[in-house]
Amino acid sequence: MNKHALYHKSDSLYAFALDNSTVEIRLRAARGDLSKVTLLYGKKHEFCMKRKSMPMTLTASDELYDYYAVRLTLADKRLAYMFRLTDGNGEDCYFSEDGATKTYDFANAYYNFFQLAYVNPNDVMKPVEWLGKAVVYQIFPDRFCRGEPPEGETSVEPNKSYINLEWGGKPTPKSFAGGNLWGIAQKLDYLCDLGINTLYMTPIFTSRSNHKYDISDYYNVDPHFGGNNAFRYLMNECKKRGMRVVLDAVFNHCSEDLEQFKDVCEKGKRSKYHDWFVVKGDKPTKKPLNYEVFSECDYMPKWNTANPEVQEYLCAVGEHWINEYGIDGWRLDVSDEVSHEFWRKFRQRIKALGDDKVLIGENWHDSRSYLRGDQFDSIMNYAFTKAMLDFYVDGALDAQGLCDRLNGLILRNITQVNGMMLNLLDCHDTHRFYTMCGCDERKLLCAIATMLFMPGATMIYYGTEIPLEGGYDPDSRRCFIWGEHEFTAKVKELLKYKKLSALGGCDVKFLCENGVFIAERSADGKTARLFVNNTDCARSVRNVTVEPYGYIIEYK
Amino acid sequence: MNKHALYHKSDSLYAFALDNSTVEIRLRAARGDLSKVTLLYGKKHEFCMKRKSMPMTLTASDELYDYYAVRLTLADKRLAYMFRLTDGNGEDCYFSEDGATKTYDFANAYYNFFQLAYVNPNDVMKPVEWLGKAVVYQIFPDRFCRGEPPEGETSVEPNKSYINLEWGGKPTPKSFAGGNLWGIAQKLDYLCDLGINTLYMTPIFTSRSNHKYDISDYYNVDPHFGGNNAFRYLMNECKKRGMRVVLDAVFNHCSEDLEQFKDVCEKGKRSKYHDWFVVKGDKPTKKPLNYEVFSECDYMPKWNTANPEVQEYLCAVGEHWINEYGIDGWRLDVSDEVSHEFWRKFRQRIKALGDDKVLIGENWHDSRSYLRGDQFDSIMNYAFTKAMLDFYVDGALDAQGLCDRLNGLILRNITQVNGMMLNLLDCHDTHRFYTMCGCDERKLLCAIATMLFMPGATMIYYGTEIPLEGGYDPDSRRCFIWGEHEFTAKVKELLKYKKLSALGGCDVKFLCENGVFIAERSADGKTARLFVNNTDCARSVRNVTVEPYGYIIEYK
Repeated sequence: MNKHALYHKSDSLYAFALDNSTVEIRLRAARGDLSKVTLLYGKKHEFCMKRKSMPMTLTASDELYDYYAVRLTLADKRLAYMFRLTDGNGEDCYFSEDGATKTYDFANAYYNFFQLAYVNPNDVMKPVEWLGKAVVYQIFPDRFCRGEPPEGETSVEPNKSYINLEWGGKPTPKSFAGGNLWGIAQKLDYLCDLGINTLYMTPIFTSRSNHKYDISDYYNVDPHFGGNNAFRYLMNECKKRGMRVVLDAVFNHCSEDLEQFKDVCEKGKRSKYHDWFVVKGDKPTKKPLNYEVFSECDYMPKWNTANPEVQEYLCAVGEHWINEYGIDGWRLDVSDEVSHEFWRKFRQRIKALGDDKVLIGENWHDSRSYLRGDQFDSIMNYAFTKAMLDFYVDGALDAQGLCDRLNGLILRNITQVNGMMLNLLDCHDTHRFYTMCGCDERKLLCAIATMLFMPGATMIYYGTEIPLEGGYDPDSRRCFIWGEHEFTAKVKELLKYKKLSALGGCDVKFLCENGVFIAERSADGKTARLFVNNTDCARSVRNVTVEPYGYIIEYK
Repeated sequence: MNKHALYHKSDSLYAFALDNSTVEIRLRAARGDLSKVTLLYGKKHEFCMKRKSMPMTLTASDELYDYYAVRLTLADKRLAYMFRLTDGNGEDCYFSEDGATKTYDFANAYYNFFQLAYVNPNDVMKPVEWLGKAVVYQIFPDRFCRGEPPEGETSVEPNKSYINLEWGGKPTPKSFAGGNLWGIAQKLDYLCDLGINTLYMTPIFTSRSNHKYDISDYYNVDPHFGGNNAFRYLMNECKKRGMRVVLDAVFNHCSEDLEQFKDVCEKGKRSKYHDWFVVKGDKPTKKPLNYEVFSECDYMPKWNTANPEVQEYLCAVGEHWINEYGIDGWRLDVSDEVSHEFWRKFRQRIKALGDDKVLIGENWHDSRSYLRGDQFDSIMNYAFTKAMLDFYVDGALDAQGLCDRLNGLILRNITQVNGMMLNLLDCHDTHRFYTMCGCDERKLLCAIATMLFMPGATMIYYGTEIPLEGGYDPDSRRCFIWGEHEFTAKVKELLKYKKLSALGGCDVKFLCENGVFIAERSADGKTARLFVNNTDCARSVRNVTVEPYGYIIEYK
């Protein structure tokens, strides 16, 4: 038996509550090593004397490991358990907190059994159901659509003199193309028709930049975008259509134009806002840079989110846009550089306004430490993005490799979190996927199909459906080209499958047969199945033939 | 290379901040597998282009794994890193979030490097320094010493009619021997002389039982123990001597005598306290039991710590005994069955009263999920207890096995937590260690010496020093036998080494040479070293000869 590969930990993503009375237990072993895995379990206070057993199922494998799992409905909320393992040679052992042992002393089990000591309802992560069914359209508002207020509505700033980029021109970091919320509102029917049910807009609050990640006023929508009126109008139009709206919360840093920061620049330590930022010295100076900033951008001072006043200020901002405008949640910018302690408070404040308000971190990395139920619901799934690049673009993964990689990603988090992940192929911070895959529409469609079958939300970066090209920022932020595009119908056709691909909620099965990547989502005895052939020869599997760089979705 | 054994995770016990500018990075590999481990690291925003490297040191091994570590002082609070590994055959690889790979694409590293995204000061766990230097004496107050109020002090209840056990008699679950806080106060000089600097008393609040884990009044010390006056007197006497005091917080459950629970029994759902407990139905009934309780004790109703009113009530209790009496912290009873969410709030409330107030969970198991800095400082180290039993009592571990086991325990938590662990050989909930090891005083002394060298606090259960015998509860709760005991001087002699054994704060090295168990604690170029020979033949190592079942402590 490969003892080095064995892994389990209580009260972790290997043992967690799915709801107040169901728990999921996972065990990791070396791939192909075990022939039988049995869970021995019982009430915590009886385990020394009395146990039940239940076989565990091999649910997924990655390159190195097999993952076994079982879901238990608890009669008592206090669960003690351990494992009985048998390998292919018939060698068996017990597996407890003390590791793999030939024998096990049940009389002293209270020292080293595994346990879920008590399933406390306030520790159980509640899934936000709509997120798993969401087809999210990410909009960079300056570049999507330039619109005018409809009759009866007025824009804060009808003056368009700030616009310095002709619609469709090549964007630079300083370009303003004039897209706004009126324009977005005008295109909602188009988006609904495409299959979109959720909007995520990059920041819309007052800022001197086109991207508005340097916010100078968190309480007012930028006049360039139409101001608060335009946003209220947009929200109403979205609600009429049953569309959800997620905004971008930039709480890691702000703009040097923010009043509080300007006050510090003026008064130094005499400013009551001095400790709102991280300034080493009296007044902020740029040369040498004596205050903390985002990356190396001196115009983006970092918030001191350890300061309770800042915490209160930002929580109030988070609440305001939900209370006053009814948004459905926040995408959290540079969330991994903001403190856990702040996010815990933020979650409590936001979830108090509705369990269905979502919190999605911009975390590019394995983020289990943010996804235990006390901070975010999910993150932007950049690890999925990387898998798509490795499979469709670089060829670093073949179909089996993709299957392994995605299973590995699924096993990074608890089931509920997987069902809320914001899956993406690209966004305003990456090259466009279409460009990355050599402008091969077939590959783009296959990648979207693969994304549809990932548990969680499916995010489409604006313009993917036409399809827009684009290298790294600012090129990935080109103006949308309005008009007829043949490709759009294909994306629309594909997105219709979201209902099927969302079957089974948080669960998915990835397989590889005859070089074809297969994803399965099941519920009530029926299965939606995706076949992807990412090679240049047609491939047959299970009575279907998949064209080169093609996909097939079946439902049986 | 044994890829199955490799393990690292960002923002976990494998990568964490020691303070605001120092981080510790750990890596796990198969024991004996690697010949060289190098950390590649850089500023997060530069890592793709620019990296430094630093060798990592093999710091500990357990049965299966080697653990490498390095401590880095950060120039920038945003760290990106990965590993370069070489095995004994010269085979090498990179190790990133995507696992072990022959090559690595640094241009795309922002997708899969490891990172400590930003060291936020409010997420850094602050060590409570005194805990690592604490020699804690655990007292079960009914059995330690029966005393009278000194002149000028008055006891709440001088009536002794509740006493039903002659001092020294065989205790039953219902015995009252009449020990009280006056008695403890009277013995403080004895305890100081023994080398004790901290008292931990099992519950002292009003309760009908002798153990008082079923509390009916959280604001009053039990009259049997002398009431609040006696506690105030005891606290003053402790402070005079520089002794710290930790009390037992029973927040998982209470007594059925508690006013709020009685109100529910009387009024059912009409009681404003109905949701303070977990009652299925209107009024609580015992047959069938329709409310949640501790274990199967119907007289101990479980608090509903998901209820914000209960959270407030218990937090206020926690604050009260600090604010009014100046206690130094809480040992948290059955803490693993109380919700994480409650403990997070409790920590914030308690730590606001002083960073040096301690929170020690009664968690018998691997408790990383409580020890990330947002809940407890440490736990009672029952896994250490089990190791001591396996080594000194059952022979399940030899010296090398003990060394491996203890290293494994050290690698369950971050460094700061190790330095705050409450190490114990026994307590009111176990057999006495002396009885377990066949009343062999030599083994008991060796075990105490081993415990002294574990990072964290050293806890001595009352009577260990005389030494008291005792099987499982109630036998482990016998009356202290006052008078001269030869053994006491040996314990006193040993405890003097705490100052040396606490060298180096949170760090320790465990070794095994010629069957002798060795523990080392170092600081400023000097090392305190313990040699234990747990066999029946004298053994020599490093120019010292250790007697059978003997120990030697040297300081060089």
